[in-house]
Amino acid sequence: MDDAVVARFAEIVGESELLTGGRISEDYARDESLTCEPRKPAVVAKPATAAEVSALLTTAAGHGVPVTARGSGSGLSGAARPREDGLLISFERMNAVLEVDAVNQVAVVQPGATLAELEQKTAAAGLAYTVYPGELSASVGGTVGTNAGGMRAVKYGVTRNNVLGLEAVLPTGEVIRTGGKTSKVSTGYDLTQLIIGSEGTLALVTEVIVKLYPRPAHSATLLAPFPDLDNVMAAVPRIISSGVAPDILEYIDNLTMAAISHNEKLELGVSDEVRDATQAYLVVGLENRDRDRLDGDMLRTAEVMSELGASDVYVLDGGGARKLIEAREKAFWAAKAAGADDVIDVVVPRSEMPGFLARARELATAAEGGVVGCGHAGDGNVHLAIFCKDAAKRHKLLHDIFAAGIAAGGAISGEHGIGQAKKDHFAALEDPAKLALLRRVKQAFDPRNILNPGVLFD
Amino acid sequence: MDDAVVARFAEIVGESELLTGGRISEDYARDESLTCEPRKPAVVAKPATAAEVSALLTTAAGHGVPVTARGSGSGLSGAARPREDGLLISFERMNAVLEVDAVNQVAVVQPGATLAELEQKTAAAGLAYTVYPGELSASVGGTVGTNAGGMRAVKYGVTRNNVLGLEAVLPTGEVIRTGGKTSKVSTGYDLTQLIIGSEGTLALVTEVIVKLYPRPAHSATLLAPFPDLDNVMAAVPRIISSGVAPDILEYIDNLTMAAISHNEKLELGVSDEVRDATQAYLVVGLENRDRDRLDGDMLRTAEVMSELGASDVYVLDGGGARKLIEAREKAFWAAKAAGADDVIDVVVPRSEMPGFLARARELATAAEGGVVGCGHAGDGNVHLAIFCKDAAKRHKLLHDIFAAGIAAGGAISGEHGIGQAKKDHFAALEDPAKLALLRRVKQAFDPRNILNPGVLFD
Ligand SMILES: Cc1cc2nc3c(=O)[nH]c(=O)nc-3n(C[C@H](O)[C@H](O)[C@H](O)COP(=O)(O)OP(=O)(O)OC[C@H]3O[C@@H](n4cnc5c(N)ncnc54)[C@H](O)[C@@H]3O)c2cc1C
Ligand SMILES: Cc1cc2nc3c(=O)[nH]c(=O)nc-3n(C[C@H](O)[C@H](O)[C@H](O)COP(=O)(O)OP(=O)(O)OC[C@H]3O[C@@H](n4cnc5c(N)ncnc54)[C@H](O)[C@@H]3O)c2cc1C
Repeated sequence: MDDAVVARFAEIVGESELLTGGRISEDYARDESLTCEPRKPAVVAKPATAAEVSALLTTAAGHGVPVTARGSGSGLSGAARPREDGLLISFERMNAVLEVDAVNQVAVVQPGATLAELEQKTAAAGLAYTVYPGELSASVGGTVGTNAGGMRAVKYGVTRNNVLGLEAVLPTGEVIRTGGKTSKVSTGYDLTQLIIGSEGTLALVTEVIVKLYPRPAHSATLLAPFPDLDNVMAAVPRIISSGVAPDILEYIDNLTMAAISHNEKLELGVSDEVRDATQAYLVVGLENRDRDRLDGDMLRTAEVMSELGASDVYVLDGGGARKLIEAREKAFWAAKAAGADDVIDVVVPRSEMPGFLARARELATAAEGGVVGCGHAGDGNVHLAIFCKDAAKRHKLLHDIFAAGIAAGGAISGEHGIGQAKKDHFAALEDPAKLALLRRVKQAFDPRNILNPGVLFD
Repeated sequence: MDDAVVARFAEIVGESELLTGGRISEDYARDESLTCEPRKPAVVAKPATAAEVSALLTTAAGHGVPVTARGSGSGLSGAARPREDGLLISFERMNAVLEVDAVNQVAVVQPGATLAELEQKTAAAGLAYTVYPGELSASVGGTVGTNAGGMRAVKYGVTRNNVLGLEAVLPTGEVIRTGGKTSKVSTGYDLTQLIIGSEGTLALVTEVIVKLYPRPAHSATLLAPFPDLDNVMAAVPRIISSGVAPDILEYIDNLTMAAISHNEKLELGVSDEVRDATQAYLVVGLENRDRDRLDGDMLRTAEVMSELGASDVYVLDGGGARKLIEAREKAFWAAKAAGADDVIDVVVPRSEMPGFLARARELATAAEGGVVGCGHAGDGNVHLAIFCKDAAKRHKLLHDIFAAGIAAGGAISGEHGIGQAKKDHFAALEDPAKLALLRRVKQAFDPRNILNPGVLFD
């Protein structure tokens, strides 16, 4: 990169907030994707305001410098991995929760604020931002970038359903505002929704207005072992149609449960006998502002699960429940520690989960590999750890699993995004007419193709 | 229009399904906007399949023929009013509810199906499509076009929150599918969301996958007169934060209540004395699968309203409730019958409603006109009937009211859209950088500008 350009970047954010060479730590070279090799950027800039972001983008556009946005780098698709010749904009200094507005039940947040920080600030007001991906160190901007989901999505929806407005800087330098503190709007194309999930390729987000919910006073967690995976899957729609509105509805297969139990020293009170006869577990979270109603919902849910073949139903106490949920959230680390070669998150219609899982296992066996997993069962979002050392075989296996998901009416990713890790599969499997349209939309935002080139498509 | 082009259109849909000249009825010339003069199109085509829609668009694109899509023509912004030199595509024959899928809680619907039809089909399965704008003759395609809202949006969200996938024909003729029977996806830009609310300017929708909810067994409606509008507005966030999750939360000002009561012969049991001391009413709908829980929620809601200054709280029986809700839905016709010159639906943050309403009244008085209204109070969506005969004054009044809404953090329209009726105001009040971006997005979809030119922007 030209020295004059670097100097200009330094002028914009201040010398101390611009990193080059040895001052760039390894962290900036990667996210948590298992397959994207770390790659350090030429420059890291840490702006403090939207105006600085705008100046950075204008300069980058003028000199054809590729720009990657980074929140906390906890993404799983390599979408925050910078270009060697590029500028990485880290939002770590724009990390304030600017406002928790209890009357409108919204918060106004800078993109670098973490979900953990937002959780703390909203809890103080008796409210909650209900997007809880497994990693609460994730930044709000990053969750907008990937349209993050997580366990509570089964009740509250994903990021897309909980972001009402944005301030964003276009690659052409203009700062725009979309949406607002309102839950609906029909006034032109919805740019909020278009930017959400665009993985830093359309615009950089400098402020986010999120929707908050009242925090129910009471909650409970049920754990049910099932001898048969198909029965788990059959129980899911039944629980949903019962009207109890669980806020967590996760399945965990026996291998994953063994791994996370071991890693996190879980004591669930499941007897060896039951455990050995179990193919998968269902974890159901319920919450209510009223204790009696919660008890009623627990009873009803336990009944449904027993009817549908659960060998037992355990009611976990607060501490036990928290440990199980945390362990489930760490399933990714367990898979990584076990030597998983990739982790994917295909989404399919709920009804298609059993068929899709069976097919994925067949394909893995044929490729001399294996798949194990857990997932947001209520959303049909299956997280699979892929074990298959041979890169070429693994590529084909992934292709076939993604194709099976699409054939079942689903998509390659439910919440992690395409990033750099899955773009070849996206290019190979997506309808060419749609891909061409996506590229034209990209072009409408970013005529010089400076924002995250190489992410989503080449 | 060239005879050869007309002949080609007839070939595509069949002679009997192509209307020209005297065979085109008045209905096709307009929607329900109060300000857009009727205008007959050159040709009306009634396709039966996506392939026919595609062929129509390809032909239209080849000859530069402007194309307007029409559902039921109940829109309020003139967005379905065709061009004199154009083709109107009426979706009346593509009106099947193709599937009600109880396991995935979705329905697959053709665009011409009415909400009334969908209501009937889903009710039979114990499920509901929860988008209920005031006019159930509206088509599903039309509600996608405008991102329709309605009363239940306070609990269930608007069309945008309840459509999971689309089949759509691009103006370039390609038929694409977006989303699916899944509640989440992070696989490229969200074209479903981009097409929703685009008022027929980006793509024509030929199939819609909508989300369904279990239909709660019990419901109740409360009516509370308030001596002061500000107190009504103060009660709204309190009811929402109480956690009772009302499915209806409407305010009706005293003049509107008088008009709809008179037109629909409502007997609400409100004494003359209370009525005369009332500035506005709050209507709260509650529902639950459990009768006792519903009763508990009613009590709690009544308490909140009494605390906040309601002069009384009436519990309406089933018949009375239905009549009131129906009458509220007909507020538009009451306004029209009373000689309203326009009806608008500004949306503002809930907290800004009192200030915005006061400002709108001031502006109307200054313009020697008047405003009365009702609205989706839970959403900050204010429906105002505008009385102001002088066209130039009215134009300025609307401009000022829209500007006041935007200044309060809101937008010109919460659910009716911009269409042809409000595009001048949109052009005058929207950020030029955003307008330019919207135009580039339009261009990405519709390079020849054949889809609904003159809607949203000129
Ligand atoms: C253990 C573990 C568990 C996880 N569980 C879940 C889960 O349950 N559900 C889920 O959805 N995800 C999960 N994730 C993935 C990850 O937490 C999410 O993808 C999250 O959204 C990433 O946030 P981040 O701040 O780390 O983003 P980053 O990785 O820094 O960036 C993600 C994307 O957003 C873009 N971006 C960042 N900031 C901005 C900005 N200001 N403007 C525009 N674009 C921006 C980046 O360019 C990149 O494309 C998990 C990850 C881990 C490690
Ligand atoms: C009495 C009354 C009460 C109302 N109450 C409400 C309310 O509470 N909430 C609310 O939101 N609205 C309300 N409306 C407005 C109206 O019902 C909605 O705007 C509805 O969405 C229009 O549906 P339609 O089928 O009549 O659409 P149309 O008027 O036919 O078309 C509306 C738009 O959608 C486009 N369109 C139609 N079909 C397609 C397709 N297949 N593909 C792409 N674009 C298409 C059209 O081109 C146009 O831009 C009310 C209207 C009336 C008359």
